[in-house]
Amino acid sequence: MNEHIAPVPLDKAYRLLNHGPTVLVSARHGDVNNVLAAAWSCALDFSPPKLTVVLDKATRTRELVERSGRFVIQVPTVQLLDLTYQVGHRSLNDEPDKLARSGVELFGFDGHDQPFVAGCSAWLACRVIPEPHNQQTYDLFIGEVVAAWADRRVFSDGHWTFESAPPELRSLHYIAGGHFYAIGEVFEAKASAQ
Amino acid sequence: MNEHIAPVPLDKAYRLLNHGPTVLVSARHGDVNNVLAAAWSCALDFSPPKLTVVLDKATRTRELVERSGRFVIQVPTVQLLDLTYQVGHRSLNDEPDKLARSGVELFGFDGHDQPFVAGCSAWLACRVIPEPHNQQTYDLFIGEVVAAWADRRVFSDGHWTFESAPPELRSLHYIAGGHFYAIGEVFEAKASAQ
Repeated sequence: MNEHIAPVPLDKAYRLLNHGPTVLVSARHGDVNNVLAAAWSCALDFSPPKLTVVLDKATRTRELVERSGRFVIQVPTVQLLDLTYQVGHRSLNDEPDKLARSGVELFGFDGHDQPFVAGCSAWLACRVIPEPHNQQTYDLFIGEVVAAWADRRVFSDGHWTFESAPPELRSLHYIAGGHFYAIGEVFEAKASAQ
Repeated sequence: MNEHIAPVPLDKAYRLLNHGPTVLVSARHGDVNNVLAAAWSCALDFSPPKLTVVLDKATRTRELVERSGRFVIQVPTVQLLDLTYQVGHRSLNDEPDKLARSGVELFGFDGHDQPFVAGCSAWLACRVIPEPHNQQTYDLFIGEVVAAWADRRVFSDGHWTFESAPPELRSLHYIAGGHFYAIGEVFEAKASAQ
């Protein structure tokens, strides 16, 4: 585990997703690991923190999530641009070495038997809150965040610090066709009108 | 309606939200209009396009959505920074002139009896797909997008063009405490590893 990683208090975990980054979803069952990119993941509640993620029925990652009842949502960075695109477009069914070919390096956190992707800026370990109707009808999964961590160089004291962090740690925001935007300039809003 | 606004084909509507912008949720019932800011809104399906949005039970906007069965999700821009923060922090219950005090200007699209917020970059008119369990348990609403429009200066041919559009049309991505980021630099990912 890299020296920059620190735990995030659970009541601040929603902030890791609040700006709508594209995420990587990872899961493990038995000795099979997989990682998928997902633009459709969103915070759902503050405390206990919950989130949603859409997982297509055709994906191996969904099968691993359903079997293990666990998954990780992590926030990839500009330095993982090609990896993010590739894990979203390669299938473990067609390419058993998908993760290696996509450049994925996995690591662990003590007490959490799940695959975490190195080089991300934040990680949220989740347990599935079973909602069979949502899962079947909408491919929509709800997770409770049971632990969270972030890279202190870009998230500290409960806030992202993209404006002062190394630019390769910016979050990615996917559109389509390999076209991503990085997060940009910071703005502070005024609480009352002039 | 401003001359730059054009319809977006429904099969491209998900792209308006794919990069995870903070949105404005608006709704009308009878002669009451309200507008709320929401960071927790997300695409859910391609075709027909669906989306999710979290609406707290304490909000007047939720009441209008439940009564009318309709709502609008729109993408505010950097030029609406203060407005976006204020409609998320003022309540129509406490301030009957909330919209005017927050600087909100509403307009309409023919055939859609809903309030649309001027100055946004994209608008998605939605009907509620009733899911009482999600609404009660998670404050989670599912909408089907029935029509969509965008400002051609920043979304054309099914793609955002933030890199060449006027910077005041960038999307906003909220964290907390009045702290927003605008969308930033564009990147094109490689489809296969080196």
